[in-house]
Amino acid sequence: MTERRQLRLGAVMRPTTIHTGAWRYPGAYPDANFNLAHLKRFAQTLEGGRFDLFFMADHLGVLNMPLDALKRSHTVTSFEPFTLLAALAGATERLGLVATASTTFEEPFHIARRFASLDHISGGRAGWNIVTTSNPDSALNFGLEEHVEHGERYRRAREFFDVVTGLWDSFADDAFIRDVESGVYFDPAKLHALNHKGAHFSVRGPLNIARPIQGWPVIVQAGASEAGRQLAAETAEIAFTSQSSLADGQRFYADVKGRMDKVGRARDHLKILPAAFVVVGDTLEEARAKRAKLDSLVHYDSAIASLSVSLGHDASGFDPDAPLPEIPESNASKSSRERVVELARREKLTVRQLAQRLGGYAGLAFVGAPAGIADQMEEWLLAEASDGFNVMLPYLPGGLEDFVDKVVPELQRRGIFRREYEGATLRENLDLPRPRNRFFDSAEGVADVSS
Amino acid sequence: MTERRQLRLGAVMRPTTIHTGAWRYPGAYPDANFNLAHLKRFAQTLEGGRFDLFFMADHLGVLNMPLDALKRSHTVTSFEPFTLLAALAGATERLGLVATASTTFEEPFHIARRFASLDHISGGRAGWNIVTTSNPDSALNFGLEEHVEHGERYRRAREFFDVVTGLWDSFADDAFIRDVESGVYFDPAKLHALNHKGAHFSVRGPLNIARPIQGWPVIVQAGASEAGRQLAAETAEIAFTSQSSLADGQRFYADVKGRMDKVGRARDHLKILPAAFVVVGDTLEEARAKRAKLDSLVHYDSAIASLSVSLGHDASGFDPDAPLPEIPESNASKSSRERVVELARREKLTVRQLAQRLGGYAGLAFVGAPAGIADQMEEWLLAEASDGFNVMLPYLPGGLEDFVDKVVPELQRRGIFRREYEGATLRENLDLPRPRNRFFDSAEGVADVSS
Repeated sequence: MTERRQLRLGAVMRPTTIHTGAWRYPGAYPDANFNLAHLKRFAQTLEGGRFDLFFMADHLGVLNMPLDALKRSHTVTSFEPFTLLAALAGATERLGLVATASTTFEEPFHIARRFASLDHISGGRAGWNIVTTSNPDSALNFGLEEHVEHGERYRRAREFFDVVTGLWDSFADDAFIRDVESGVYFDPAKLHALNHKGAHFSVRGPLNIARPIQGWPVIVQAGASEAGRQLAAETAEIAFTSQSSLADGQRFYADVKGRMDKVGRARDHLKILPAAFVVVGDTLEEARAKRAKLDSLVHYDSAIASLSVSLGHDASGFDPDAPLPEIPESNASKSSRERVVELARREKLTVRQLAQRLGGYAGLAFVGAPAGIADQMEEWLLAEASDGFNVMLPYLPGGLEDFVDKVVPELQRRGIFRREYEGATLRENLDLPRPRNRFFDSAEGVADVSS
Repeated sequence: MTERRQLRLGAVMRPTTIHTGAWRYPGAYPDANFNLAHLKRFAQTLEGGRFDLFFMADHLGVLNMPLDALKRSHTVTSFEPFTLLAALAGATERLGLVATASTTFEEPFHIARRFASLDHISGGRAGWNIVTTSNPDSALNFGLEEHVEHGERYRRAREFFDVVTGLWDSFADDAFIRDVESGVYFDPAKLHALNHKGAHFSVRGPLNIARPIQGWPVIVQAGASEAGRQLAAETAEIAFTSQSSLADGQRFYADVKGRMDKVGRARDHLKILPAAFVVVGDTLEEARAKRAKLDSLVHYDSAIASLSVSLGHDASGFDPDAPLPEIPESNASKSSRERVVELARREKLTVRQLAQRLGGYAGLAFVGAPAGIADQMEEWLLAEASDGFNVMLPYLPGGLEDFVDKVVPELQRRGIFRREYEGATLRENLDLPRPRNRFFDSAEGVADVSS
């Protein structure tokens, strides 16, 4: 029997779900986002479902919304990623733990050290989602009046990555001898001080922690811009993307894997995982009803603001219970407006339903019975539109338990998803090579992540 | 019966012990400093001994020593404080968890957020050891060619403290309503954006996490300079100090508590805890033999370098097995030289023994049988030379187990140390008031930590 292509599954937790109505769903925990006992249980459920990883999105501040919308958001209070994931490491054994950390508002020495520590604490399960932080409001929490410009953010990110990975390589893997007799704790020939001096950073090193168990934590990247794609092709091992159709997925996939060919990296060494909002029902109808119920919990005032932005036209005067009227041309992004209009027509949504969809989650969604969801996931996988998905759960714990209890067994039956973890580390489970230590290992037979 | 003054006990872990020979001691774990399973067990042992807190010292880099000395140091690899303490939170229930974080090389927004998160994760057991980082080598890991000058470091530290505590107060304690019916997650009248603009920081806020369980994590401070004492008197709830004699302890204690009177703080609201290196034997002789054995494990080459520095005179030509010869005057600190000469005479140490003492740990030490150690601790407490101690263990696990099994019961018998934890949070166990929220609470009947 031929080995089938294997699906990779992450769960996007921030620290739970992205949908703004989730905390109000019947049976959901209103405090799911900020209750450690719940979060430990969610992580254990993901591990029971053999998920590759817990992906912790992050923001460096409270999102800048009018207070009247903000007061409805369950994301205003959230655990900080390093502390939460270190705590979850103790409650799990195999689940990967991916933290988001910004290259714009952090120092590479701290970031290198914290990820190395998390990797040791978790037995080799850490991953770093590298973000350049595009939210201009975050800058105001770090003394910057103006946000750093996009190209500059990416140049800084690239140098930041080089410094962090260089610091991880401070000690050879076998540096620590701990010879009680002679009193030598480590072999000094196996210590390298980085002495980095670049355009953005000057960092002497060495890092004061042993090389991570995985060599380097798994590198995750989410940027979709030209610079973001190139950075992903050169450095990332997971790309967290947001294509909303199979065709878009295929285009992105071909583009980034093609860029990998050009820089000499094996295509398998980067897993492309689009975000997918998944609502499971016993039937398609039930799943659709769940989503409709969930969307209906988005407050209309905030929802209509989202719709107005997407349309580039004030929608507050529209009849909420009528179909979307004709929208005149405007300065707003034409593709954004067309996407919204098309969605309203296709699903025959009223203005209220459309607005609540946008205020909840409007990206790629798989809504259906377990077999239907598995069909779509398999289709994306086989069509090379993705290597798997970063699953967004609609509400907790029900939406998560439905996925693990109903969709995962369906994927396993098809032979496209693991029944048991393959290894102990995130790298082993993702079948990613262990990066060589640039200062101590020969270049043969080792990873090709560019350094 | 009159309530006796109560001793407070911290354990200085970095993450284990400061003595450079510790990892070589017979029966000690050579990897104690960097083995999470061991560290969890140590924390549980401390909790069994009803210690107030696990104090995690920290350095932002590998210490700058010649490689030939560095290779003998077990401190070159260490967990990072936030990740380690979050992991230990899950292995303990009552033990306080104090992390060191620098005001010179961190951003207040990140620090406020991480401590708030650790406080929530641990159920209210976090403490922040505020350091300004005096080690000039750390600067080289953060892009600074020259270290920040002392007075400037303290001015920045004070503003940093104001920003962090202001961010912790972003939400009122009762801000989170989570009213599923109305869809209101928090009361917007109970959110405050800091909008801080000062000489060093510009931070808008609010912090994106609920107010810490303790209001604020417990504030710890270690500076002994004029500026450090004043900062402690104004802001600290624990002072981690290093007086080496009872008389010195009394002078420091009177000075800092007197400064508290002047700024209108109650003396009880700051616990002064000098570091004390404690070696327990069944008899005084056994304890002294243990210490001598431990000191003998410090490599002579590194030890003699420490002695030369302390004397201001090259000691490498001295006969290691003879008494210390007469030392000519030099430019070195006279008090340092006199202290060393006095130590050698008092304990009749050879040059080798003296050098190894300095290369191990030469500060305040209680070496003896359990009753003798308890006598000394009680004497300091009753003489108002301290409110307790930050205990430094000589080696792990034996040195820790001896303290918990033998000294703690002796202190409990005398009625100066708890048999059970008084509360759930570190603040409750230390009998410290919960700070009021400056934006939402009235000023009556609440803490007096200056803000």
